Amino acid sequence: MPSRSQVFLTDSLKEMNTSSLTVGIVGATGAVGQELVRLLHERNFPMSSLRLFASARSAGKTVEKYGKKYTIEEAKLGAFAGVDVAFFAAGGSVTKAFAADAIKSGCLVIDKSSVHRMDPAVPLVIPEINPQDLLKNQGLIANPNCSTAVTLMGLYPLHKAFGLKRYFAATFQSVSGTGAEAIRELEDQTQAYVKGQPMNKKVYPYQIFQNCIPQVDSFGADGYTGEENKMMLESRKIMGMPNLKVSTTCVRVPVVRAHSVAVNAEFEKPVSVAAAREAIAAFEGAVLVDDQAARQYPTPLDFAEKVKCGVGRIRIDTAFDNGLSFWVSGDNLWKGAALNAVQNAELMIKNGWLKKKA
Amino acid sequence: MPSRSQVFLTDSLKEMNTSSLTVGIVGATGAVGQELVRLLHERNFPMSSLRLFASARSAGKTVEKYGKKYTIEEAKLGAFAGVDVAFFAAGGSVTKAFAADAIKSGCLVIDKSSVHRMDPAVPLVIPEINPQDLLKNQGLIANPNCSTAVTLMGLYPLHKAFGLKRYFAATFQSVSGTGAEAIRELEDQTQAYVKGQPMNKKVYPYQIFQNCIPQVDSFGADGYTGEENKMMLESRKIMGMPNLKVSTTCVRVPVVRAHSVAVNAEFEKPVSVAAAREAIAAFEGAVLVDDQAARQYPTPLDFAEKVKCGVGRIRIDTAFDNGLSFWVSGDNLWKGAALNAVQNAELMIKNGWLKKKA
Repeated sequence: MPSRSQVFLTDSLKEMNTSSLTVGIVGATGAVGQELVRLLHERNFPMSSLRLFASARSAGKTVEKYGKKYTIEEAKLGAFAGVDVAFFAAGGSVTKAFAADAIKSGCLVIDKSSVHRMDPAVPLVIPEINPQDLLKNQGLIANPNCSTAVTLMGLYPLHKAFGLKRYFAATFQSVSGTGAEAIRELEDQTQAYVKGQPMNKKVYPYQIFQNCIPQVDSFGADGYTGEENKMMLESRKIMGMPNLKVSTTCVRVPVVRAHSVAVNAEFEKPVSVAAAREAIAAFEGAVLVDDQAARQYPTPLDFAEKVKCGVGRIRIDTAFDNGLSFWVSGDNLWKGAALNAVQNAELMIKNGWLKKKA
Repeated sequence: MPSRSQVFLTDSLKEMNTSSLTVGIVGATGAVGQELVRLLHERNFPMSSLRLFASARSAGKTVEKYGKKYTIEEAKLGAFAGVDVAFFAAGGSVTKAFAADAIKSGCLVIDKSSVHRMDPAVPLVIPEINPQDLLKNQGLIANPNCSTAVTLMGLYPLHKAFGLKRYFAATFQSVSGTGAEAIRELEDQTQAYVKGQPMNKKVYPYQIFQNCIPQVDSFGADGYTGEENKMMLESRKIMGMPNLKVSTTCVRVPVVRAHSVAVNAEFEKPVSVAAAREAIAAFEGAVLVDDQAARQYPTPLDFAEKVKCGVGRIRIDTAFDNGLSFWVSGDNLWKGAALNAVQNAELMIKNGWLKKKA
């Protein structure tokens, strides 16, 4: 198996006719699906054809994207014949229903849902961290949870520099992580507030406008939410640290886009703020925004629709003997979902790992 | 010195003619000052006269509160003659300028500002935690920082039950903690958003509407903000634990009122969720809101204008050998400022500790 740097730093595209790729997006009308359409176009993803899939309800509708008209196709068994790469962005039940069929027809599935993330046979990949795991794929690559991806953009380079032992985190998660209907709910509540109208709620159990809700996903028997458990389990799998100690509290805040995370991390080796800043600045997935005198640090508003995540507020942790505290903001729809999925596909292509159809 | 329970649980009012007390509020036109006026009235604080002080700019103006007209007096040297208890809620510079003079004239000063909090000669008191420290006062009682007060309403009862060793926290702080002008800034930005007008900022360096700002107070040389340092130092002083390890990240969120805090705490003794819930439920300063099946946990919206702070999301911490995670929401203007100040004064009176003027 090639090392991480051998894989990731391969700059020359392998000689292959990638421009004939047929790409599919499943859940194309959702919040992440729309970002996938956008990113594939803006990043000039090597494809000759894009097919948009959604539920029967949306099938048949025509949408125009980047000057091209698309007719939405129904996601169903048999629909993926001829698709080389399919981005599944429609939730776990859709992945369960159709991913195996797509894989059988020779399609590479890159899945946003959580259903296969912890399957030992399925690689769970952030390209800047464990690209070599892509090679283990058997037709399906899982994409990490949004909070995990954003957190690791700060945590992983510090782990490489100092050897992570344990971390605590609290998240400040935007409503777009829940989906398009939650973006609408915050918008509707904001409008209702200003117009003095009654405030309705449907997506969240509590008003999210001018409020914080300390629940993301449903509760497990141990009192942790699904999101909090995902952050622990996925951090371990992606960084290859099966015994890593992790404790997080995941909170929804009235922000439209980009998650932020306050992290306290303990390390094996002696730490310094200067070395930590160097490690962040040198990391592909992060940009250092950390100038206290100038009040410079990342905010979610600044890191919405940004490829890299912002890391700042780096300081020696006052409650660990050998720890650092920091703050990271990153786009949950991009690095936390669509962008990471596209980057995984790009890396497969770049390295000649994509089995093309005849 | 009487024990905590002897002091706090004294229910019978001492025989003293407290109804002749003259009470002053300094900074009466600010966010906390207005809550002081309200709480003194709503709680039937034993006073015969209330005098409102502010800067020369507001002096002479007449305001009507609870059916009475008040003429705002200028806070200046000599102005506090005849005042028995003065609540200072106008910031550190006003305390520095006038508190000593007020004390000299026999007034008990209860100070919201941070200037004297860490002075070893000044008691820093949360009545539910260290009421006995009130007796050490030499005319001035300091009121804690808002985030510290709210955090300790969850943390202190757990400390009593299990013996606190260290804690990590991230705060979700409302704009009212900054003051009335910050409440206006969030309101103005919300209005501007809905009306499609340009969004101005003056109080915060970044837009706070639909954003999170990981800076509360100014930065120290160690990279921690004033607020973060206060949480560490004041937690130590109030709980009498000079070596307590504390690490916090303080973040401003677009909430009007009530701060929330996500806490990870390590303890000496074995912990259990059941015993933790019992400890919270039995504590005077907190109300337990912790039913996962019913999606019940505190939110800032539910704990604005509440006397007690809400504690929930109690669970065994997954990154400590012997720890608990929890979430607390509480009114920063009340328990975090005005209410705690009034409670301190009430306790002084109740226990007959207030030196009355002739």
